[in-house]
Amino acid sequence: MSVKTSSNIVVLLFMFLTVSSSYNHEGNNKHYKPCKRLVLFFHNILYNGNNKANSTAAIVAAPEWGNLTILTSQFHFGDLVVFDDPITLDNNLHSSPVGRARGQYIYDAKNTFSTWLGFSFVLNSTDYHGSINFIGANPYLVNFRYISVVGGTGDFFMHRGIAPLMSDATEGQVYFRLRVDIKFYECW
Amino acid sequence: MSVKTSSNIVVLLFMFLTVSSSYNHEGNNKHYKPCKRLVLFFHNILYNGNNKANSTAAIVAAPEWGNLTILTSQFHFGDLVVFDDPITLDNNLHSSPVGRARGQYIYDAKNTFSTWLGFSFVLNSTDYHGSINFIGANPYLVNFRYISVVGGTGDFFMHRGIAPLMSDATEGQVYFRLRVDIKFYECW
Amino acid sequence: MSVKTSSNIVVLLFMFLTVSSSYNHEGNNKHYKPCKRLVLFFHNILYNGNNKANSTAAIVAAPEWGNLTILTSQFHFGDLVVFDDPITLDNNLHSSPVGRARGQYIYDAKNTFSTWLGFSFVLNSTDYHGSINFIGANPYLVNFRYISVVGGTGDFFMHRGIAPLMSDATEGQVYFRLRVDIKFYECW
Repeated sequence: MSVKTSSNIVVLLFMFLTVSSSYNHEGNNKHYKPCKRLVLFFHNILYNGNNKANSTAAIVAAPEWGNLTILTSQFHFGDLVVFDDPITLDNNLHSSPVGRARGQYIYDAKNTFSTWLGFSFVLNSTDYHGSINFIGANPYLVNFRYISVVGGTGDFFMHRGIAPLMSDATEGQVYFRLRVDIKFYECW
Repeated sequence: MSVKTSSNIVVLLFMFLTVSSSYNHEGNNKHYKPCKRLVLFFHNILYNGNNKANSTAAIVAAPEWGNLTILTSQFHFGDLVVFDDPITLDNNLHSSPVGRARGQYIYDAKNTFSTWLGFSFVLNSTDYHGSINFIGANPYLVNFRYISVVGGTGDFFMHRGIAPLMSDATEGQVYFRLRVDIKFYECW
Repeated sequence: MSVKTSSNIVVLLFMFLTVSSSYNHEGNNKHYKPCKRLVLFFHNILYNGNNKANSTAAIVAAPEWGNLTILTSQFHFGDLVVFDDPITLDNNLHSSPVGRARGQYIYDAKNTFSTWLGFSFVLNSTDYHGSINFIGANPYLVNFRYISVVGGTGDFFMHRGIAPLMSDATEGQVYFRLRVDIKFYECW
């Protein structure tokens, strides 16, 4: 009996451990380990009326009081920018790109600097092939801004996660470089 | 033997219950209980040419036949609005905000009133700290419109859910107030 | 003892099988079977200055060098289009629509043809009632482009999946028809 009982207790314990470790993402603890992680940089050069050839982004909509070559005053509220930015493995704009970051950002705050992001990474390198889709708020005066990875395709099929963004460099209103630390918590 | 067998049956039953309760979201029944729920209000004051200081939203794009101070005729089709709306716990515009609703809505129907929403709640209160990301269709003549919660950060890390929207008040083309009943079905 | 042991081994094996089959989406194999699948067509007729009544889409934002009646040269970079397209079960524009595809597409590439999509299917037929929310990159020179299904409501409550898009027809800059093969991998 004691052997049998202890044996069953082992089964029960084992089950608890298996199930609870599998389900730890249902708990309250947010210190999960990503199942996949990618650190990448992307580079945004905003069109300002004089740099059409080498710009990677353009203001395409602005409020009544704005225009399409200069970011609107008062936190640029209402400016919508379309971008096609090179993605690199390091912080060098001239490194060989591993893909493109494409989509939109919208200056959407009246009393601070913040954008709303809707974009995709389209990766095509020796290491990764597929797309990653992001949306989220980017209050870019904060050191780390967390946006959502809401889906992916190819190597990132059905993935979800969180991506902390960091401003790695900013040069006036023309150039900025973002460091993205993509942490996937759902990998398929 | 009978003790052993019943003991094992208990283990088996326990397993079934654990696994099936954990997986009830894979079934066909849509009467799930949210794992978290938040009811909030947000307030939109559209810029109309005369209310720049206290407006919270502005038309920034319109079709060829439209403009940026008056919503386009024929269901406002094509108007894109950027907003930075205060979020409150009750229906009073002047209540202390617990965060901001920021993003865009687009009038995207030619034969009815409907918008496409892409926005984030950025919450910063004593109770909640984090962001919630939404997208979805808002055919706002309908009493309840259901949009998707596609991700979140901070207190809403990796959450998903459904948010029924209700028009709580509408005043001409300038002010509307939405009641959002955020129901999370995936909590981490 | 041997009966007891083998009995416990069965329990253990059963557990492993249950848990591992439930979690096969956590593995590396991407040959999953969809839990639901829908093949639909949608039809886009772009406003060009002369077809306001029967167009289903309009350019509402463009870069400084563009305008709202002709797609911008150089891959249409920066053009933002709002659409309200009929969805049909077959490839006939005049078939009875089962819903509307509504949202935006943005030409977001400087060196190729590609759009960023953010839109919803609003379905209202005898077979389906509910909405499906999509975002993703659409490099439309490629045969199949994969975008993310990030959520849904009604019959598609909390669903996620992948939708391969195929250009089924293109007529100049005015008409295109997309075939969407919606594959849900998370059904509730």
